[in-house]
Amino acid sequence: MTATAPARELWSSPVDGPAVAVVGGGQLARMMQQAAMALGVPLRLLAEGPDTSAAQVVPDALVGSPADLDALRAVAAGCAVVTFDHEHVPAAHLEALRTDGVVCRPGPEALLHAQDKLVMRRGLGGLGVACPAWRLVDTPAAVERSAPDLGGFPLVLKSTRGGYDGKGVWVIDSASGAGPAFAAAAGSGAQVLAEAYVDFARELAVCVARSPSGQTAVYPVVESVQRDGVCREVVAPAPGLDPELALAAQQVALTIAGGLDVTGILAVELFETSAGAVLVNELAMRPHNTGHWSIDGAVTSQFENHLRAVLDLPLGSPRARAPWTVMVNVLGGVEELYAGYPHVLARDPALRVHLYGKSVRPGRKVGHVTAYGDDLDQVRARAWHAAAWFNGTEEDNA
Amino acid sequence: MTATAPARELWSSPVDGPAVAVVGGGQLARMMQQAAMALGVPLRLLAEGPDTSAAQVVPDALVGSPADLDALRAVAAGCAVVTFDHEHVPAAHLEALRTDGVVCRPGPEALLHAQDKLVMRRGLGGLGVACPAWRLVDTPAAVERSAPDLGGFPLVLKSTRGGYDGKGVWVIDSASGAGPAFAAAAGSGAQVLAEAYVDFARELAVCVARSPSGQTAVYPVVESVQRDGVCREVVAPAPGLDPELALAAQQVALTIAGGLDVTGILAVELFETSAGAVLVNELAMRPHNTGHWSIDGAVTSQFENHLRAVLDLPLGSPRARAPWTVMVNVLGGVEELYAGYPHVLARDPALRVHLYGKSVRPGRKVGHVTAYGDDLDQVRARAWHAAAWFNGTEEDNA
Repeated sequence: MTATAPARELWSSPVDGPAVAVVGGGQLARMMQQAAMALGVPLRLLAEGPDTSAAQVVPDALVGSPADLDALRAVAAGCAVVTFDHEHVPAAHLEALRTDGVVCRPGPEALLHAQDKLVMRRGLGGLGVACPAWRLVDTPAAVERSAPDLGGFPLVLKSTRGGYDGKGVWVIDSASGAGPAFAAAAGSGAQVLAEAYVDFARELAVCVARSPSGQTAVYPVVESVQRDGVCREVVAPAPGLDPELALAAQQVALTIAGGLDVTGILAVELFETSAGAVLVNELAMRPHNTGHWSIDGAVTSQFENHLRAVLDLPLGSPRARAPWTVMVNVLGGVEELYAGYPHVLARDPALRVHLYGKSVRPGRKVGHVTAYGDDLDQVRARAWHAAAWFNGTEEDNA
Repeated sequence: MTATAPARELWSSPVDGPAVAVVGGGQLARMMQQAAMALGVPLRLLAEGPDTSAAQVVPDALVGSPADLDALRAVAAGCAVVTFDHEHVPAAHLEALRTDGVVCRPGPEALLHAQDKLVMRRGLGGLGVACPAWRLVDTPAAVERSAPDLGGFPLVLKSTRGGYDGKGVWVIDSASGAGPAFAAAAGSGAQVLAEAYVDFARELAVCVARSPSGQTAVYPVVESVQRDGVCREVVAPAPGLDPELALAAQQVALTIAGGLDVTGILAVELFETSAGAVLVNELAMRPHNTGHWSIDGAVTSQFENHLRAVLDLPLGSPRARAPWTVMVNVLGGVEELYAGYPHVLARDPALRVHLYGKSVRPGRKVGHVTAYGDDLDQVRARAWHAAAWFNGTEEDNA
């Protein structure tokens, strides 16, 4: 571990409240910092490098790996609570921190459900939450044997650990295509799940904030549009969603948050089936891409409610401020994002832009744009145009 | 000058755009940083100390005095533009920076009007902008002689330099009360203005952002309530304001911004007279307390538009998002602001709180709260209750 800044004694700073340690220095921690600044709460960061998205804006940043227990202990020292920008902290380290008396929110048992898809599927089953049918498989032959129980091919294979943004997920048309999944899982010490391929009507998501004392604040159900496994667009609220199904989706999120004792933000990604049901696809226990719209579109952003929740402060209203809010990710493309500003800002004075201070690589999430208003078509067109301009594409709402 | 952090070469950071240097590390720079983070623009700070409000959240902070030209040069090096959290930079230093090729926004000629009230009054006179009648006075006898031209006593005496938050202003009932003003002015090398005491109906304020290329974005006219010379409450828009007078006030702000070649935010504080006219009281050339409502209440905050303006980027919409937005300052009182959260946040889940990370001293501005909604009475009551709770007073909307 390398300390890039002297570890200041935050409790002697002018701020009278607790400090929050954040493991991970990506854009989620960066946006947490904006919320922390308003609350007057100091953040301390364990960042992957001195120039990561959040390390650029958090003076009290240590550079180190979440796999290094000493680094975790150093960042936790003197902070009231430890929370996370990502899920990549070994469970054994979280247990060690707990033995030290460190408060982690979410706690290790809850977080394991966001780290291991087998634990997640078993946990959701125990809560009676509907998921796609699944089987644990250990060979291509086991895939073949499981297929009839999963509705036949195509099937989805998932590594139980380490997947994100479409990585660790394979759609296969026959058991002979299972090789890459097993190879990848074996390489990372993970197992493989075979899941039914859900011919969904669309993907939905719900964010809920939950505090240790059990208060919850659930955000409107949103529609998320993925391409190549990566979130591209989020529309809040999900257009045309049956109010009963919206309520059911929110109840699923509340059931999971309470049942797994989640603290902070829980994001639940769901499939809406053509039959009008919801099935849980994935969980995340941190602010989530499907909640970025809330910065400009809700009374209280997911980042502020995450901090309030992990500090066990009363939660803020998750209500939407406009009839429609649309967020579109900026996924790299043009080398100089800044050069996009003269056009994008002049064209749409009400557009909200969030760039993360990350270097551009094709497909890398380097920012997002948000538009809101009364007319969904217009709002979507505004957000897509701006994102496409930053991406250097002509795609707009393609 | 003491460097608290190594001066990083920002142009080699992952961020591809320009960096902005901010002179002064108070809450205005802190709130600028929140906006800069969204834009992906790195800030570099010249802060009065290592733990000032903004230095807590800007890693690239140098500790030094704005009166130290070497410190100013150090913070400007490598930045595209220098801007300000306060007006306390010697004009000669700004000229020296210009000779170095440093771009300051606002520039020295404009800023002088916010630094020196005599220059301001003469400048506004040259633009035909209505102000209270004024005379430059150098002795109590001169005050006596000027009184008839200024509507008689009471009169207002102002030190031409160094005043803020009610400091540097004296209301006198006779020339014999002029001693303190002359003593204070002499002590700081300033002069004394005698101004007509305006029996105003209320105080108004207008913020306008202006870019070097001349684009302007003018915010709604707000009512500001001062007590003991300190801003307590801002209501946006000013309730019951005659639309023609509102337009006139905005035109005054645009006239001043253009006439003095202001870049960044210009805040114009005005008296609304009982005869239905507006007179300019004070100017500030930076984000201003009367514009803090815009963080939660407008499409684009004054802080973001200040940054866009000094970077000559297209300006954002200054439109209000709700019918009424009320900001009330938190002026210290209770020692532990954080202890106010459980009540304040639980009572009003839609309240927006901004604490500045400053130690509490009685009367010191340590934060502000904002409420917005459809019913002005309710919105005011919510904001005042929260501020009073943080202040440890029972005053509410007293």
